[in-house]
Amino acid sequence: MFLRVRVVQKYGGSSVADAESIKRVAKRVVATKQLGHDVVVVISAMGDTTDELMDLALQVTPQPPPRELDMLLTAGERMSAALLAMAIADQGLHARSLTGSQAGIITTGTHGNARIIDITPGRITKALDADDIVIVAGFQGVAQDTKDVTTLGRGASDTTAVALAASLGADYCEIYTDVDGVYTADPRIVPSAQRIPEISYEEMLEMAACGAKILHLRCVEYARRERVPVQVRSSFSDKPGTWVRDPQPVDPDAQPDPEGAPVEQAIISGVAHDRGEAKITIVGVPDKIGEAARIFEAVAATEINIDMIVQNVSAVATSRTDISFTLPKTDGVTAITALNALQEEVGFTDVLYDDQIGKVSVVGVGMRSHPGVTAKFFSALAAANVNIGMISTSEIRISVVVDQDDVDRAVAAAHTAFGLDATEQAVVYAGTGR
Amino acid sequence: MFLRVRVVQKYGGSSVADAESIKRVAKRVVATKQLGHDVVVVISAMGDTTDELMDLALQVTPQPPPRELDMLLTAGERMSAALLAMAIADQGLHARSLTGSQAGIITTGTHGNARIIDITPGRITKALDADDIVIVAGFQGVAQDTKDVTTLGRGASDTTAVALAASLGADYCEIYTDVDGVYTADPRIVPSAQRIPEISYEEMLEMAACGAKILHLRCVEYARRERVPVQVRSSFSDKPGTWVRDPQPVDPDAQPDPEGAPVEQAIISGVAHDRGEAKITIVGVPDKIGEAARIFEAVAATEINIDMIVQNVSAVATSRTDISFTLPKTDGVTAITALNALQEEVGFTDVLYDDQIGKVSVVGVGMRSHPGVTAKFFSALAAANVNIGMISTSEIRISVVVDQDDVDRAVAAAHTAFGLDATEQAVVYAGTGR
Repeated sequence: MFLRVRVVQKYGGSSVADAESIKRVAKRVVATKQLGHDVVVVISAMGDTTDELMDLALQVTPQPPPRELDMLLTAGERMSAALLAMAIADQGLHARSLTGSQAGIITTGTHGNARIIDITPGRITKALDADDIVIVAGFQGVAQDTKDVTTLGRGASDTTAVALAASLGADYCEIYTDVDGVYTADPRIVPSAQRIPEISYEEMLEMAACGAKILHLRCVEYARRERVPVQVRSSFSDKPGTWVRDPQPVDPDAQPDPEGAPVEQAIISGVAHDRGEAKITIVGVPDKIGEAARIFEAVAATEINIDMIVQNVSAVATSRTDISFTLPKTDGVTAITALNALQEEVGFTDVLYDDQIGKVSVVGVGMRSHPGVTAKFFSALAAANVNIGMISTSEIRISVVVDQDDVDRAVAAAHTAFGLDATEQAVVYAGTGR
Repeated sequence: MFLRVRVVQKYGGSSVADAESIKRVAKRVVATKQLGHDVVVVISAMGDTTDELMDLALQVTPQPPPRELDMLLTAGERMSAALLAMAIADQGLHARSLTGSQAGIITTGTHGNARIIDITPGRITKALDADDIVIVAGFQGVAQDTKDVTTLGRGASDTTAVALAASLGADYCEIYTDVDGVYTADPRIVPSAQRIPEISYEEMLEMAACGAKILHLRCVEYARRERVPVQVRSSFSDKPGTWVRDPQPVDPDAQPDPEGAPVEQAIISGVAHDRGEAKITIVGVPDKIGEAARIFEAVAATEINIDMIVQNVSAVATSRTDISFTLPKTDGVTAITALNALQEEVGFTDVLYDDQIGKVSVVGVGMRSHPGVTAKFFSALAAANVNIGMISTSEIRISVVVDQDDVDRAVAAAHTAFGLDATEQAVVYAGTGR
């Protein structure tokens, strides 16, 4: 029985780095179409185009207006979309490229980091009805109010793809990249890391939030909310990749397992790490109701996402306490500036900044039903001589902040302790997975 | 008394070749705005961007679909428009870049060579009302029916500028390029050529049609139809350039001359030449009514613009004649193919192709009232030992086809014969004027 499906495929910049790569992607798209499926392709800018355009902007002015930066950067995906449509035409099929605006990607007006608020895919469905392949420029949309061109933030073509898949009622969304799936740890750090054949939305979300760069966080959030099955695959091979979706029954003929989990669920699905954060410590905060709130309101006003927060027990003698939190390194200067402006008003002693840290996280739905995961994790770190700075947990994740130099050792120790090491060494990829 | 004017400025690719040039253009735009004027800027793609994008397309497929080629190429002007807006912001003023579509340039659906059919400049006037400088991506528009992105043909940013000037009721349109005006002949061929301070629309139209590359033909047609005063200037100097407009009174306090011509009107305004054409001769066409029409219908069906046509007097003995016409070299293969397909049906003997020709034209409204211009022109050519192949005339132009090797000599001879040589040698520019 032939099953016609509707699929959204997304190809990243490394998959379309030059004319030859574009032709290779076209072959894959054409092959999918020739199976009789409806195919919508979301495409990133070629290779380093976005970086090059950014460099050009910075040559013109140190502070490009965000609206104009969006106008500039969106040219990148427009070019790759048109070129892919040409390459498909060269193979005898008909393809139509659409900008984000033409594809009906309606966003907020926050240039550089807009959010999708609606999709009106009329032009896409019309093209699909005409049996065309549709190529959509990723990473971009049009602001609902101003009708100006917007971008969704770096790496957001993944989000475009999943959002379109949801809007079009696609059966699934394939994310093609330069690695062949999600691994139990970064294979460059843990050579014995294994490809994860299948992972739940919740776990993938924690992995992405904790530094696994394979999928954009917002894309996973979107996929989870809309229940879009996502397959992460390599555009350089035909390997099966990793499915991100609701847990599937083990036996294809069996009814779905009411528990939603395979029989041999591992306790931990993967170990993630992140070297992109810094730690700020506010020393000597008066231990009065509302002081912490004022501090975090000041930081929130700068639109910085803070991650882990630790407040020490107040010293009885002074009635003062220290508050530490982590945040993306790139937001360090902004946060320090905001906090220094607050020092006199709140009356804390000092603000300390440490960017020589790293975060290591173990993630797995299995830990819900397995007590002792924390103990096992911390023992493994101790045995590897890794000192723990801060701790934060969710129902399916434990994260610790460690010295940056200890990150590799901590990841390897956790990976081994939870039995994730493969018997064979994984392929190590040069790419970053984006 | 301060006079607030509305001006459209167009900058070509050589004026925005890199970040430094873009900053220089921004200074000029800002200076105009600071005079208190309304400023709309039309911008071409940076330097060789369009050629580079075309190369990329040809790497992907030898025959890029025109719709997708338009999608690709329009990225060039989008980038330069955004960068110029950034450079203006860097100098403290507010600018807003708009794509052709956003600027309301509504066109036919002929990808690669669309024509402007309407302009709905609502977003432009709104931005001008907000005292913003508006930057419009040249060369592009949006098809009325399909809403697809279109391009207006190479060099058509000039046309965008003049069309916008007309639609916005601008006082005039400045076309900035890399030469400082229209010359009496190409200064690379005639070092004593002079800048023409002022030229009528009709003469400029003939000059452009005869190979003067300084202004795009369609742009001049538009300017003439809408009576938009156009000033051709160098973006590298402050020289006054050339005004293309209705003849002005000599004394600014005097009433317009009813004859519309300055007192000392030269007979000939300039000498143009064109090496871009080829000659096709159809040998032995049966001298029957309708045969020539069938031939030219076949050529017209290929959408080729033919230029000069000559039909020899029929030889009485054979009742057959030869027909020659000129056309752009780039259309040679298409025309030959169409004619060969027709040979059996019409029954002519042969089709000859000659691309070693050149066209030399003298242009001037003065020839209307001066008999003997043709004689003077032909005598000058004869004295310079130039053989005339074909002749065509309009009310204000005489064109001849000559051997390609004779073009330079013919241009110089005509320039001297009509008293156009300056006493000082003109600056010779390396650029092409586009």
